[in-house]
Formats: sequence, C-alpha cells, structure tokens
Amino acid sequence: LARTTAAAVIIGNEVLTAKVKDANGAFLAERLYQRGIDLKWMAVVPDEVDAIVAALSHARTIASHVFTSGGIGPTHDDVTVRAVALALGRSVVRLPEVEALIKEHYGARATPEAMRLADAPEGAELLTQEGIWYHTLRCANVSLLPGVPLLFKLQLENVLTRLSGAPVALRCIYLSLGEPEIARVLDAVAHQRPQVAIGSYPQFDSSVGYKVKVTVEHLEPGTADAVVAELVEALPKGSVLRVE
Amino acid sequence: LARTTAAAVIIGNEVLTAKVKDANGAFLAERLYQRGIDLKWMAVVPDEVDAIVAALSHARTIASHVFTSGGIGPTHDDVTVRAVALALGRSVVRLPEVEALIKEHYGARATPEAMRLADAPEGAELLTQEGIWYHTLRCANVSLLPGVPLLFKLQLENVLTRLSGAPVALRCIYLSLGEPEIARVLDAVAHQRPQVAIGSYPQFDSSVGYKVKVTVEHLEPGTADAVVAELVEALPKGSVLRVE
Repeated sequence: LARTTAAAVIIGNEVLTAKVKDANGAFLAERLYQRGIDLKWMAVVPDEVDAIVAALSHARTIASHVFTSGGIGPTHDDVTVRAVALALGRSVVRLPEVEALIKEHYGARATPEAMRLADAPEGAELLTQEGIWYHTLRCANVSLLPGVPLLFKLQLENVLTRLSGAPVALRCIYLSLGEPEIARVLDAVAHQRPQVAIGSYPQFDSSVGYKVKVTVEHLEPGTADAVVAELVEALPKGSVLRVE
Repeated sequence: LARTTAAAVIIGNEVLTAKVKDANGAFLAERLYQRGIDLKWMAVVPDEVDAIVAALSHARTIASHVFTSGGIGPTHDDVTVRAVALALGRSVVRLPEVEALIKEHYGARATPEAMRLADAPEGAELLTQEGIWYHTLRCANVSLLPGVPLLFKLQLENVLTRLSGAPVALRCIYLSLGEPEIARVLDAVAHQRPQVAIGSYPQFDSSVGYKVKVTVEHLEPGTADAVVAELVEALPKGSVLRVE
C-alpha cells in the first residue's frame, strides 16, 4: 500500500534569522499526519532562487506532492514563482484572468507591482476557494502557499481536499525505565517488524512521570496493537506505566 | 568580509509526524543570529541513514559549520553517528574513555546497549563542558547535538563558544501602506544596494497597527542607517509610521 508522500520548502530569510518563528512547517506536519499523508522532508531556505530550486528538486525526487511556504508577494524578495518555474523547466507567464481579479480587488492600489501577483509558472492550475478572492497556485505536483500563517492555513485546506490519505494508527507506551534498559527489547521487536514504525523518546524532566515514551505506528490498528502486546510482554516486568 | 556560515539537520520522525513541535531549529536560528553566524539552510529529515547522509552532504557544501539535532541515543532509531560517519567517509569507532564514563554514570544500568553512547565517527573531538558528564561530539565541521531541547541548548553553547561571529545591525521600518504600493521603491533601493539585506513582511491583521514591516540589515550600522534614510526619503509621504 503506497501512501501519498509530501515534502515542504519553507522560504524565508526571516525564519533563518529568527525574526519570525516558523509556524507553517509544524502546522503542515500536523494536518498531513491527520490526513494520513506521509511527510518525508522539510527544509527552510533563504529568499534566493538557487536555494529554492535546489530544495524543490530534492523534494520532488522523494515525495509525490511538494508544498512551498512564502515568497509569493509582489516585492523584490518574493522569488518563489520564478524558482518553481525554473525547477519545473517552465517559463513564467502573466495570467490575464488574475490581472483582472487584482484590478477588481485592489482598485486604485493596483500598481504595476501588484500585477506581479498574476505571474505563475506556465501551465499552473488556479485552485479557487469559496470566500477568498485569491486562488491557490498549483503547478505539476508543487503547491505554492503564502508565508503568512493565517493564509497558509486557509490555502493548505484548499489543497488537502484534493489529496488522498491513509491515516495510521498510533499507540504510545509510557515506561519507568530509561533507554539503556529497554533498547535490547526495542531492537529485537523493531528488527522482526520492519514495516512497523517504532519510536523511542526519552524524557529527562522527572516531573513528567515517565522516562521513555515508545510509539508504535501502522496503517492497520490490529498490527499496531499486536506489536504493543509483543513489546509489553518482552519489556522488563513492572516497567510499563500505561499504554494509550 | 566572509562571515561564518551554518546549516542544520533536524533528525526526527516525531517532528515530521507532528508528535513533537521542533523547538531546536528556532532556538538555533536565534542564537546564531545573536552570535553573528549566517544560518543558510535547515532541514527536518526522518531517522533514516540515507536521508541524513543526503542532508549532511548538502549542508556541508553550503555552510562552514553543520549542526545536527537528535538521533544520538542508544535505541534502534538513533542512527545519527552512523550517518555522520558515512557522510564524512569515516568509520564508527567505540571510544574506551567514553565507555568508562558511561559505566561511572549509569552504574548497574550500564547495559551493553548503553555502551552505544560511546560510539563516534573516527577522529571525532569530545568537547567537554563544566557540570555535564557527557561531552558534545564534533567531527570535522559537524556538531552532533541531542534532540531533547534542554540538552540541545546546553550543548549548543558548548559549540558556540568555539565559533567566531560578526553580528549584523538590524533596522525596521513600519509602514501604513501595503506591499503593492511600496514595491517600486524597495525594488530600486534593493537593486542599488545588493550588499544590504532588505526584507518586506506584510501584516494582514489590522489590529497590529501597520501594514508592512521592512527590515534592513548590514554588518556596518552606518550602512544600515544610510539605507533606511534612502528608503524613508523615497517612500510615499506619510507612509512611514516609525523606524526602530
């Protein structure tokens, strides 16, 4: 069963220079997980065409769908459309139907620079969304989302309704022992169950009440439950605090 | 003037599947900016050797120092040491001096699996730090930091004291006009001043009290101030709310 895969390119000098904490990457990860789409890779790159093209090229080799965040405004530092076009081997074209929308939306403020918002890689689709005057731009398997978190969230949903996913079942085992004491058991089960994702997350804050959280994930809830049962059986007696 | 550059590889299925919101990337960006080190790129990759090697190889071509976060514990999903060794063309060796430390620290809990914490890429340096029993591992230009945020922060400082930086001067101009109305002026000044980083960040929340924040950065405060003066002069009359 091949799941839909995704990768993301977060474009923004402001994130790399800590002027803004990126919220879009974490939000995207959460929504993709909920929708059952497998996020393989995320990168934060500067507002530079070469850096964006390199990231897009890598992203497209490892995932079936790529999201970009940021760099689609009308100023000199907005170069995402150009970079996506380059990465896809297409030219940038100005779309008359979008020019008309911009004139309608901005009225007297529809400067020549505002018209840059009508630029798109050749062959791009305009995904419309009820209640929003501006479309979401998708070109081949790349969706160009805005960097402003409120708009990112809105337009992400616009894309997600068009992708199919398969959510995994997640189980968590909370343990009173540290990783050195449980590693042997995890090794053995993980080795026997290569199709099941088993994660181990230590906790060094004693107020939390457990030392390690082990996660077990699989598309089939029954398989996840079976692996949890195997782990609980094999782990040292009394070390399992609870299973969720 | 060549500034020290950096790149980061955040290793963690838990971030890509939204079980944990990564805090280390944003913290690293903030500390590097404060220290005057130019962060060029960050990626979040799964706990897979191939994905980590690919990210490290790219990071090393674009930055003089690379930080990894996560994957250095003793369980099956901790593969960072192996990946760093592969990316650098070195073997993994077990360090007897670290084995001794582990035995001392863990006592009866020093299982064979705990001894994996003594593995390192051949030729790695052990950066010691007062008050912490475990060293920070650095190999060539790669520093291997733990994923747990508290430990990441501590060990990051251990590395930062060994790197030199040159902080930039940052100025911010807050404007009452939107990007379409100021893009022409930004274009012209950015074009004339290619060495100065000029950013434009729109704000769509009307309660914030401005429409665009323009940032100006340069190593020389005098140059940053001169560019701010040029922008203020050229921007539409009355559009500048304040400069910080």
